[in-house]
Amino acid sequence: MEKDIFLDIFKIIKDRIANPKEGSYVCYLLDKGLDKTLKKIGEEATEVVIAAKNTKEELVYEMADLWFHSLVLLAQAGLSPDEVYKELRRRHKQ
Amino acid sequence: MEKDIFLDIFKIIKDRIANPKEGSYVCYLLDKGLDKTLKKIGEEATEVVIAAKNTKEELVYEMADLWFHSLVLLAQAGLSPDEVYKELRRRHKQ
Amino acid sequence: MEKDIFLDIFKIIKDRIANPKEGSYVCYLLDKGLDKTLKKIGEEATEVVIAAKNTKEELVYEMADLWFHSLVLLAQAGLSPDEVYKELRRRHKQ
Amino acid sequence: MEKDIFLDIFKIIKDRIANPKEGSYVCYLLDKGLDKTLKKIGEEATEVVIAAKNTKEELVYEMADLWFHSLVLLAQAGLSPDEVYKELRRRHKQ
Repeated sequence: MEKDIFLDIFKIIKDRIANPKEGSYVCYLLDKGLDKTLKKIGEEATEVVIAAKNTKEELVYEMADLWFHSLVLLAQAGLSPDEVYKELRRRHKQ
Repeated sequence: MEKDIFLDIFKIIKDRIANPKEGSYVCYLLDKGLDKTLKKIGEEATEVVIAAKNTKEELVYEMADLWFHSLVLLAQAGLSPDEVYKELRRRHKQ
Repeated sequence: MEKDIFLDIFKIIKDRIANPKEGSYVCYLLDKGLDKTLKKIGEEATEVVIAAKNTKEELVYEMADLWFHSLVLLAQAGLSPDEVYKELRRRHKQ
Repeated sequence: MEKDIFLDIFKIIKDRIANPKEGSYVCYLLDKGLDKTLKKIGEEATEVVIAAKNTKEELVYEMADLWFHSLVLLAQAGLSPDEVYKELRRRHKQ
């Protein structure tokens, strides 16, 4: 398995926060505040549900959106994917 | 970074599907059909939104739930996290 | 058109709050606190979305659930359906 | 109690469907198809949840949005609020 894509994307998000860039979607979201990202989570989750009733291609696309906005939310909350991984590992260790 | 936790969990989910086990939560979900998992996606996304308005601990916990059910949905749809990773990589390659 | 069903149900909800009754679903929800009702809103909205992709009968059933929990939320927040009606009337007056 | 606002708004929505009008939001939604309205349901429900954690004013505003889009969805599905009222009345008759 290649390098973890979540950590790669999370690094880009953190970098955008540290070095705001005109026209960056992450900067736009962060500027709008936490509620904006939360609305996106609800929206993307609904799009995942709809997509799953439609086609596999749509589901892959919408899941990518949901996961991306999950990472933005974690960054915005001062958390990292590692903390969620740790919780998942705690639950699923055999 | 250690081994990818998503792929680990996904392997467990696939194994539960191949070898159903009494009392397994994944088997319970799969038995109930696609709509049950979709309801969980909507439920867990809402819990992520509420948690983000409450505490960091709650957010980590609910995000773990959302990601776990995302993986169950992918398995149920005959997809894998790799396909979502590929889509994310396509978007974020620099 | 007969008497407004929302105001009828809202009166029942307010009555349950004023006179808690063992085994009442409204009392159960209220006891659990605001977040429990918010989770139900997210859950029922997702069920409306799924239902709309399935059958008309399911959509009617789930919409009834969503509207019922909307009324519980308004009561819990110290609001009434009249305030939402007023906002709707303000927007749609011609 | 004055005339039922849901039935008033529903009549406007049905009229927009029968007589499409340039620049009408309802026509825009209908043109985009069922999935667009379903996305709005998920979005508005999430905004209700966020609003309930913020202020009463925000909650009234977002609930109005959620109920409005519920009515559009019913129209789009060939249903009417009366069918949901009937289901609610069936459940809550005493």
